[in-house]
Amino acid sequence: MSVSRSDSFLSESAVVDQEAVQPFPNSKKIYVSGSRSDIRVPMREIKQHETISDQGSTPNSVVTVYDTSGKYTDPEEHIDIRKGLKNTREGWIDERGDTERLEDLSSKYGRQRSVDPALSHLHFARQLLPRRAKNGLNVSQMHYAKQGIITPEMEFVAIRENQKLSSIKSGAFGRTHEGDALGAEIPKVITPEFVRQEIARGRAVLPANINHPESEPMIIGRNFLVKINANIGNSAVTSSIEEEVAKMTWATRWGADTIMDLSTGKNIHETREWIIRNSPTPIGTVPIYQALEKVGGVAEDLTWEIFRDTLIEQAEQGVDYFTIHAGVRLAYVPMTARRMTGIVSRGGSIMAKWCLSHHKESFLYEHFEDICEVMKAYDVCFSLGDGLRPGSIADANDEAQFAELETLGELTNIAWQHDVQTMIEGPGHVPMHLIKENMEKQLKHCGEAPFYTLGPLTTDIAPGYDHITSGIGAAMIGWYGTAMLCYVTPKEHLGLPDKDDVKEGIITYKIAAHAADLAKGHPGAQARDDALSQARFEFRWEDQFNLSLDPDRAREFHDQTLPKEGHKVAHFCSMCGPKFCSMKITQEVREFADNQGIDGQSALSEGMKAKAIEFKKLGSNIYNKN
Amino acid sequence: MSVSRSDSFLSESAVVDQEAVQPFPNSKKIYVSGSRSDIRVPMREIKQHETISDQGSTPNSVVTVYDTSGKYTDPEEHIDIRKGLKNTREGWIDERGDTERLEDLSSKYGRQRSVDPALSHLHFARQLLPRRAKNGLNVSQMHYAKQGIITPEMEFVAIRENQKLSSIKSGAFGRTHEGDALGAEIPKVITPEFVRQEIARGRAVLPANINHPESEPMIIGRNFLVKINANIGNSAVTSSIEEEVAKMTWATRWGADTIMDLSTGKNIHETREWIIRNSPTPIGTVPIYQALEKVGGVAEDLTWEIFRDTLIEQAEQGVDYFTIHAGVRLAYVPMTARRMTGIVSRGGSIMAKWCLSHHKESFLYEHFEDICEVMKAYDVCFSLGDGLRPGSIADANDEAQFAELETLGELTNIAWQHDVQTMIEGPGHVPMHLIKENMEKQLKHCGEAPFYTLGPLTTDIAPGYDHITSGIGAAMIGWYGTAMLCYVTPKEHLGLPDKDDVKEGIITYKIAAHAADLAKGHPGAQARDDALSQARFEFRWEDQFNLSLDPDRAREFHDQTLPKEGHKVAHFCSMCGPKFCSMKITQEVREFADNQGIDGQSALSEGMKAKAIEFKKLGSNIYNKN
Repeated sequence: MSVSRSDSFLSESAVVDQEAVQPFPNSKKIYVSGSRSDIRVPMREIKQHETISDQGSTPNSVVTVYDTSGKYTDPEEHIDIRKGLKNTREGWIDERGDTERLEDLSSKYGRQRSVDPALSHLHFARQLLPRRAKNGLNVSQMHYAKQGIITPEMEFVAIRENQKLSSIKSGAFGRTHEGDALGAEIPKVITPEFVRQEIARGRAVLPANINHPESEPMIIGRNFLVKINANIGNSAVTSSIEEEVAKMTWATRWGADTIMDLSTGKNIHETREWIIRNSPTPIGTVPIYQALEKVGGVAEDLTWEIFRDTLIEQAEQGVDYFTIHAGVRLAYVPMTARRMTGIVSRGGSIMAKWCLSHHKESFLYEHFEDICEVMKAYDVCFSLGDGLRPGSIADANDEAQFAELETLGELTNIAWQHDVQTMIEGPGHVPMHLIKENMEKQLKHCGEAPFYTLGPLTTDIAPGYDHITSGIGAAMIGWYGTAMLCYVTPKEHLGLPDKDDVKEGIITYKIAAHAADLAKGHPGAQARDDALSQARFEFRWEDQFNLSLDPDRAREFHDQTLPKEGHKVAHFCSMCGPKFCSMKITQEVREFADNQGIDGQSALSEGMKAKAIEFKKLGSNIYNKN
Repeated sequence: MSVSRSDSFLSESAVVDQEAVQPFPNSKKIYVSGSRSDIRVPMREIKQHETISDQGSTPNSVVTVYDTSGKYTDPEEHIDIRKGLKNTREGWIDERGDTERLEDLSSKYGRQRSVDPALSHLHFARQLLPRRAKNGLNVSQMHYAKQGIITPEMEFVAIRENQKLSSIKSGAFGRTHEGDALGAEIPKVITPEFVRQEIARGRAVLPANINHPESEPMIIGRNFLVKINANIGNSAVTSSIEEEVAKMTWATRWGADTIMDLSTGKNIHETREWIIRNSPTPIGTVPIYQALEKVGGVAEDLTWEIFRDTLIEQAEQGVDYFTIHAGVRLAYVPMTARRMTGIVSRGGSIMAKWCLSHHKESFLYEHFEDICEVMKAYDVCFSLGDGLRPGSIADANDEAQFAELETLGELTNIAWQHDVQTMIEGPGHVPMHLIKENMEKQLKHCGEAPFYTLGPLTTDIAPGYDHITSGIGAAMIGWYGTAMLCYVTPKEHLGLPDKDDVKEGIITYKIAAHAADLAKGHPGAQARDDALSQARFEFRWEDQFNLSLDPDRAREFHDQTLPKEGHKVAHFCSMCGPKFCSMKITQEVREFADNQGIDGQSALSEGMKAKAIEFKKLGSNIYNKN
């Protein structure tokens, strides 16, 4: 891979984070083709070493895993941040014939920024102007789905969701079970038609703004793999465009399925442009943050007109989903007055202040259908914000929170009438015993629209470890049916995450999402666990590292105590030393049993327990008889 | 605090880890007295700053938290590792009059080690020989409890368990709820009589070997606070006595309720002696590890005699509980032959190998009543090991695992007939949807004896992050009723934990245990969450740090982006900057509502939602009317 380098990020040449563009160890980027040659679905194949035993060596099959990292981990690709990614979806959008290329940006603010000479050093050199739906047309994936159209995007995600199935051997995996998964129904094989049905039904969203043709389609819904989102973004006190782009590539490397750019600092518009042009994953934003910036930070001065211009500005850049806090109604604000921690959502508190100051209903609520008109002209997906989510254990599941949730359900129905894709944001801080109620109420009030939760954090007492307090809640609510988990980093409540924090947050949430997939009985989810456990049992250390979510850390931790190369083929590790290894002893037990003629298969069959007791009664020569 | 220092740990003077003996910030060590002056229960009081608002300043009460750190965090105490801790329980044991001081060690091996001149530099200079029950007497806390005797140890733990109640204000906290806590019944106030009843019933254990008089009594049972255990110990390839003692003090500092010394390397006997003499928490071991060491690592060579001598050797040192894998019966071994990862418990695999090699039933099972005789002579508590626990998601909840669990239930009944305290060890690797079944089966088969689980890990794919994969499972099974959670560090499966790993594992498990306490509705558990959230809401940054599980990390993370002292009183933080702080906006909303006459209390009352909607209909001057 060739990489452009320079000291100046935004002028002549752009630097790419070297660490973020290394291929994964012993892995190969592959592209699975669909029904047409321009559907090329990226996956990562992890090669395994042979199993070596006294009987000789046996090959182990490759393990294919879902890959969110885009071209950055493909050594065949040239990376140039200044040029952005290829517009792989351009042809699909074009051939639908329902969009037109604009002659100028529609947003007044966007136009101002684009011609401001003081900003020219920050501009991304975009080659084409944005698209918009032709007058009166609806270009949302939901709209197509409802008409029975299977788009290339839908076929792409169907192939992508199935990738793990390729690793499934025999009938040992893919058990399905109901349990607490609250009615999720995941088919053994995801077909494009199933994808279409789920989108049409509103049970899944495929965020794919027509102005983000660089994105690799993905789907969010409870009958698919659980997804995770990583928040990045600068604030008034810290961070640069360069850092934010680096965080984005870093986040997708480790498994972020979507990225939210929550910038509230300088040059929000330009930062976002650079991120979108280089992002293989959908990008979400909270437009009210930028709108507030435009009115000098004074919430009372916000207007529908400024907000609408911001939506259009961002939609034409290619933002794939907008968090909109339209459920924070004037009537609900007093319900928060006696809370332990009031309103902790930034968007929620901005709107609460606006409502109280003007003694008026929220303009987001009042103009919700106008917002739908914008969304469907670009296919921006709603992420209806939970502005009244609890900010502490004490405030969990209270009246304010659930009043807002009911309103989000009402708004979901309106959005669906406009064929606008919609997901619902959820809490926050919730103790374990109150988590399931959140999922149940969301399913009930919001017609099974995908739930997208922040954690929830299961205790307030561990600032510095809130990836963990929330990873617990995230795994549980993912099991119950949440479709996407918004990560929380160790810095939550304390500061802005740096690169290490972003990675720590993402791996924690990949764990939560995968634990949820296992608990839901997602077909194929267990294949990676099985492959890794098998490698562990056989002391294939390198395979154990390579199959893990973070091969670098696994290898590093191992090597801290047993650094030599020889130790990576050793049949023991530093925990127990050579004599005490239980896995080694088990292998001896197994060999012993084999030599003595114990039939392993029959040992698994029903009634074996009773039979084994009988063996014992018959005495010590039983092993020779069987 | 004065601390002895030298370069040589074990000879003239011993070094103590300076980092482990710092008092916690803005905290005070207090001792709550019981019915007699020698019952002094340690707690930590965290002082808070005043709340400052436009209306002036209001004091905030101290928050009292459970304290496992012993005298190491008490600046009034002199720390000398060579002398060990005070024998605070000595008088209580003495006055019961049922023990006698031995004239020599009862264990042959112990005697050999004690006179070996080659080991003299490793010897801890113990002042007194061990105690043992007088002939035929039973000195277990369970034995006393069954006779209706409330020991000072029982009163101590009753006071200790209640400590958090002192922080509870008004009626806002301490809600109780059933949910998934599977029938736990936690009284609002723990009395010594309740402690006695729970121990007599077998539903709780109070590990307190008569030869570990230095220990501060604690209780393990599902109607008490959920506890955590930290494993330390060397292996053949790494670590020294000094490091292990340092790990112990470090682990208790961060909240380990018990410590298991799992050493399998050099000088196991002497390492353990140093740990016990300096440990304020109960110490557990797995005696089979040392027994195997004594036969040169050859499992087949183990005998009941060697094992029994090891039990006595360790009981006379003061080990408070023994993990004994007596449930690994010969008949169950073939059930593991076709598992993905066979037998992963070290003790389990040793016993399986022994059983197969000799074609005999396990000597631990055969001699179980003989073991009980040893246990009751010193009050060592059983921790019945789950030698057949699953080592991978694929093997969870299988026949072998549950066959062993039933046997552990059978053994629990035998132990209880001998009035020997007993807890049951549990898995392991279990996906979320299979966790509850483990708790249900344990309650059913083992008569509600305390469950003590390792995690469980909810996925196999994240070596390097197994504190998190298991913290998820630990929180859930703690909620369901597990009484003690054995921590897993980030190094699990990869290497021996260092100091940082120990801390990371402990904090993760404190989170899991506390999340479980909250979910079970433990009275008072929420007080710390509420205090911290209140501090957070009021921008009392120092209080937020000090009330957290890890004040050092919270402060460090905050200061990475806002290092100045002034920023610790700032009404914003680096996440959002000054303009966007939602907490600040909420305060403005609240003040606005107050100024306009909105009654916060009525906002909380039922029907407020409807009323609020009515407000809105009445128009913008509503706030003046109310």
